[in-house]
Amino acid sequence: MSKSVFAAALLAGAATSTLSLAAPLAAKEGMFTPGQLPEIADDLRKTGLEVSPEALSDLTGFPMGAIVQLQGCSASFVSDEGLVVTNHHCARGSVQYNSTAENNYLENGFLAKAKGEELPAAPGSRVYVTTDISDVTARVREGIDAFSPNERYDTVDQRVKDITAECEQDAGYRCLVASFYGGEEYTLIKRLEVKDVRLVYAPADSIGKYGGDIDNWMWPRHTGDFSFYRAYVAPDGTSAEYSEDNVPYRPKHHLKVSAAGLDDGDFVMAAGYPGSTNRYTRLGEVKNTFEWTYPTFVTLLNNWIDTIEEAAPEGSDARVKYESRLAGLNNYEKNLRGQIDGARRVNLVGLRAEREAELDAWIAADPSRSGYGEAIAALDELSEESATAARTNFWYGNVTNPQLLGTAQRLYRLAKEKEKPDAQRESGYQERDMAFFRQGLQALDRRYDASVDKAEWLLFLNGYLAQPAAERVAVFDQATGLVGVTDAAQAEPIVDRYYANTTLGDTETRLALMDASVAELEASKDPFMQLAIALYDYGIDLEQQSEERAGRALVLRPAYMQAITQWQRSQGIATYPDANSTLRVTYGKVLGGSPRDGMAYLPFTTLEGILEKDTGEDPFNAPAKQLTEIRAGDYGDYALDSIGSVPVNFLSDLDSTGGNSGSATLNSRAELVGLLFDGTFESVNSDWYFDPRTTRTIHVDTRYMLWVMDKVDGAQALIEEMDVVR
Amino acid sequence: MSKSVFAAALLAGAATSTLSLAAPLAAKEGMFTPGQLPEIADDLRKTGLEVSPEALSDLTGFPMGAIVQLQGCSASFVSDEGLVVTNHHCARGSVQYNSTAENNYLENGFLAKAKGEELPAAPGSRVYVTTDISDVTARVREGIDAFSPNERYDTVDQRVKDITAECEQDAGYRCLVASFYGGEEYTLIKRLEVKDVRLVYAPADSIGKYGGDIDNWMWPRHTGDFSFYRAYVAPDGTSAEYSEDNVPYRPKHHLKVSAAGLDDGDFVMAAGYPGSTNRYTRLGEVKNTFEWTYPTFVTLLNNWIDTIEEAAPEGSDARVKYESRLAGLNNYEKNLRGQIDGARRVNLVGLRAEREAELDAWIAADPSRSGYGEAIAALDELSEESATAARTNFWYGNVTNPQLLGTAQRLYRLAKEKEKPDAQRESGYQERDMAFFRQGLQALDRRYDASVDKAEWLLFLNGYLAQPAAERVAVFDQATGLVGVTDAAQAEPIVDRYYANTTLGDTETRLALMDASVAELEASKDPFMQLAIALYDYGIDLEQQSEERAGRALVLRPAYMQAITQWQRSQGIATYPDANSTLRVTYGKVLGGSPRDGMAYLPFTTLEGILEKDTGEDPFNAPAKQLTEIRAGDYGDYALDSIGSVPVNFLSDLDSTGGNSGSATLNSRAELVGLLFDGTFESVNSDWYFDPRTTRTIHVDTRYMLWVMDKVDGAQALIEEMDVVR
Repeated sequence: MSKSVFAAALLAGAATSTLSLAAPLAAKEGMFTPGQLPEIADDLRKTGLEVSPEALSDLTGFPMGAIVQLQGCSASFVSDEGLVVTNHHCARGSVQYNSTAENNYLENGFLAKAKGEELPAAPGSRVYVTTDISDVTARVREGIDAFSPNERYDTVDQRVKDITAECEQDAGYRCLVASFYGGEEYTLIKRLEVKDVRLVYAPADSIGKYGGDIDNWMWPRHTGDFSFYRAYVAPDGTSAEYSEDNVPYRPKHHLKVSAAGLDDGDFVMAAGYPGSTNRYTRLGEVKNTFEWTYPTFVTLLNNWIDTIEEAAPEGSDARVKYESRLAGLNNYEKNLRGQIDGARRVNLVGLRAEREAELDAWIAADPSRSGYGEAIAALDELSEESATAARTNFWYGNVTNPQLLGTAQRLYRLAKEKEKPDAQRESGYQERDMAFFRQGLQALDRRYDASVDKAEWLLFLNGYLAQPAAERVAVFDQATGLVGVTDAAQAEPIVDRYYANTTLGDTETRLALMDASVAELEASKDPFMQLAIALYDYGIDLEQQSEERAGRALVLRPAYMQAITQWQRSQGIATYPDANSTLRVTYGKVLGGSPRDGMAYLPFTTLEGILEKDTGEDPFNAPAKQLTEIRAGDYGDYALDSIGSVPVNFLSDLDSTGGNSGSATLNSRAELVGLLFDGTFESVNSDWYFDPRTTRTIHVDTRYMLWVMDKVDGAQALIEEMDVVR
Repeated sequence: MSKSVFAAALLAGAATSTLSLAAPLAAKEGMFTPGQLPEIADDLRKTGLEVSPEALSDLTGFPMGAIVQLQGCSASFVSDEGLVVTNHHCARGSVQYNSTAENNYLENGFLAKAKGEELPAAPGSRVYVTTDISDVTARVREGIDAFSPNERYDTVDQRVKDITAECEQDAGYRCLVASFYGGEEYTLIKRLEVKDVRLVYAPADSIGKYGGDIDNWMWPRHTGDFSFYRAYVAPDGTSAEYSEDNVPYRPKHHLKVSAAGLDDGDFVMAAGYPGSTNRYTRLGEVKNTFEWTYPTFVTLLNNWIDTIEEAAPEGSDARVKYESRLAGLNNYEKNLRGQIDGARRVNLVGLRAEREAELDAWIAADPSRSGYGEAIAALDELSEESATAARTNFWYGNVTNPQLLGTAQRLYRLAKEKEKPDAQRESGYQERDMAFFRQGLQALDRRYDASVDKAEWLLFLNGYLAQPAAERVAVFDQATGLVGVTDAAQAEPIVDRYYANTTLGDTETRLALMDASVAELEASKDPFMQLAIALYDYGIDLEQQSEERAGRALVLRPAYMQAITQWQRSQGIATYPDANSTLRVTYGKVLGGSPRDGMAYLPFTTLEGILEKDTGEDPFNAPAKQLTEIRAGDYGDYALDSIGSVPVNFLSDLDSTGGNSGSATLNSRAELVGLLFDGTFESVNSDWYFDPRTTRTIHVDTRYMLWVMDKVDGAQALIEEMDVVR
């Protein structure tokens, strides 16, 4: 199995079609860096791209200059006054932040009638606009092959911090050194950090989150997953915290919004920031993940969910604080089950074994490639070591996971790191990180309940105490008084004592400790702080072991990726790097699919599908006005003839993952035709293997977005502000 | 909305297509009596039928003479030696009956290597072969319009019994007088009752029940739902109980089995015995059902299931006895939810209101039709009365439902009925019913556990005691000592006393009481018998009220059906009667569908879909041999080119319901191409309204049946015995 757009076509040809439809099965694999696009220009043009592939590789030109990043999401500029469109689920935190019992914007939606009415986004909200990128590989990697693994890791880490710090000398910018191909290449990305982000328009949850958790990852889908922010800067155009004096940011580029949209089979591409994929992991890592880690975690997650639900009964104040965590755990559990299911369905282990055998054969065919073979053997050995470490530390990791213990550990680490010059501090503890650090401590307030935290800790302790003696951590047992204890019942009074005597549950106390010295913290009587201090050296030790392995990987993984790249190049295949939260382009077609034998997903859903799903009860409770408009058949200018209705969501064969949410979905002329917001359930395993038959990405159609704005929410002024084209 | 094959085509044309596929959406509605087929001969031919529609109307000719009925299922002869093919789920009781720990035929399947090895089917198994039908309307209905409702009901009931008894003078025959169009027509059906039925071949559950309850009513489907019986008769050809001297029955007709099968869009028809439908119920009945009865029952069913699961914990002996009831209740609950869901989706209430308004307009258009208007008004009033009675009696009905109380009531009724001449006894209590009566009493043994029965009774009592005083039944309260009791806790000791003192839990005791006189039973000290006797008069009273309503309906409903028939005829539409367990023919095409917006069902599933579903765990645990054959791609001569595999199950737009299971699915030449065995979940509401977009019937393909017989189970001898054609 190989990993590119060309390979996908080969695969599709070989697959036995179970569709009696005329629909093509081929799906386009590949999350390409913009810089790679000229290399695959021929296929882009053949697939239907009309703008120049070369233009797409210019990150600060059109259209890529219009693509921006939020925390964990993608977005794009759609007006010359800094209007940003992203997913509703990416902006929902800001809607929630501004909602009150009287003004419940989650329930009713929010639309600013004028700029002055736009609301500040949730604290910490940012819009990152890329202004420059440069290759810093030579500077990061120079001479590191000769170092010991720990020296190598530390050197790379320090150089990355230094480069970042230099770049951030330019005030108002947030810089990032991204690693590609397992450390083979490093790129510095300089981004304007827009700190004054305001909420402009979000439809009601009953449109923007239609289908809720039930429809999450599901097709057919009818979610109006779009919302609008606006980026504000100081009058001089520089980044500034929120101020009434700020003015809308004027981006160099913004996207035109298509009201004509797409039809089945049309070219489509998406530009966004996929988080991470595992397309090149070695077989050993795959096996460890799918045979041990994921199944073990699914079991734990189910117990964890039960524990929270019991400790925070429905209707309790505690439940409100844990709703978001519960949703996250449920989401993760569903995702892992989907991944396990998908791996079984595509025979992931078999496919990886096959690919590795083919790569081995290619290496064996030429003695000059023997270095690759040695590196790969060493990488496999390293993978085994990492897997063993992960298993051994699994329960220790969980048992040190409760929120107050984690908080104490971070505060003590901060005090320790602050003894060093800022430039040498661990990532996450530098001055540049302090705003987010503080926000994290504050946010705990809304997400912490002592009885639930205690119940969680007891759950993890149950698991920890059940492990063989060899996997117990002496320093933890001694510090907690759990030496020799194997019965969870004995742990309960110990745990009770922590919660009875801690003061870390108090926000002011936590915030004040950000300024405490190591000595002050070591004098603390707080039991969680005392435990954090007792565990500190052990934690640093684990970290150094992990860095030692990472240091070895810094040589081995690039060698492996070079082997993959050369082997694939010999077959005419371009190798793209695993996702790493940097800008990527994926392209393909509007395309339904066959999620399983005997069933097909059609490429579009329609307004009428909302009537069909609607029960009047959350999450299938479309606004009355919307239902009336649909029943009246008032499609405006937004209908797609081939489906006889306004398209709501559509499917494509694009290659996406978490982080891609909100990505601009573009047609062949680089006009906005939709927003990428999800993948089908059968696609969740695509982080490991892109199955051309089942991997499908879900988009909200701009025609539906415009229809809602026009017919339901009265957002004509925003439609006017954008360049809507046909 | 109208109710015929022609109407369906109109509807489909009006519906907004959400499919971007070329698949036609039209589905054929109609469960036609064979006698109606000449009337719709043109459409049959147009749809693709190649044999003469007139031939299909001859029940004792070819091919209808090959179609037979089992209890609750349909089947057909497929050899001249009495070989009968039906669904696995129709024959599974016989597989279970013959299974032991050593010979677990459910798990391993069963195949008789020679006729001598064929096993007796479960007690009470029958094959009914229709030998004659005649119209007895005149004799049944003569003069009844002038009678009072109760006289009318009794007269019709007695005439039906008399006609049946005359017909059964011919030994070995079981006769049936069936009512059509709400009592407008009566047909006598004379059927040879084959009592010596033997199990010939059943694949393992892991083929025949593949997907189990999870896949029940679901598409995509991969169930090998086929099994073979053989009918045996005395050497002289007459019906006889099991005997070693019996010989295979030689049917006048049997079906050829197609190994060529069908492709998407091909003509297909099914001949079988659908149980009952409600296509002509009045709006009031629809509303009462969907707004009260079904939702109320869903709630009760869920509590009932919980009660049994608690009283009969997994792994207990009691659970074994109640597995089948639990499966039934779960099945029913899923069905009702599907019905409620479907009624909402198609707007059943709105459609009925529309149809009734159209019918009213047709009646109003011509003064000569005013009689219809009056009859319909009276029918609606009657429907209201029936609905009120059903609501009032709902909890009394449940509270008298526990098995031992029901048994006592039936035994006392039997003693009462036996005081009359046989011909005048209530149906179910005549000599002809005694074999099944006895079997029922025996079967209780395997389905009864005192603690579970008690828990069920307490559940029903809880509901009963919570009702307003007006809905309490004085005689029940007095007989049980529950006068004034509203607290369920007080009921428990009362209930305990019943179970502590009854002897009806003992099979021999129950059977002996079949011969007891009224006086003997009235002297019984058994608390259930005493309660049954106390409730007897009240029950008879309820029955007479119900018969009074039925007597009125015997005039009103035929008038309503005449109005429907004439109104539809005026539009060129043929009206078929609601299903009534008599032979019907439904025809249409092999056709996928769109169960909902954005999704399509493909018409065929494939062998590879089994690999895809298989987890190795029940119910997705195909036999190893089968998996090996599929992986080897050994399709034999059974592949369908257009899908590149052996088709496993297929969809059609045929109109079917419970009782159709096992129906012969025939191609245009009346060759067997499959067995009808289920409908999709979106179709369960079709008993009330045939939605051409979503109603689809599921068949097992004969190519899969033959492939399994050939490649997996080594049933070549049976293949040889049948006339396999291409």
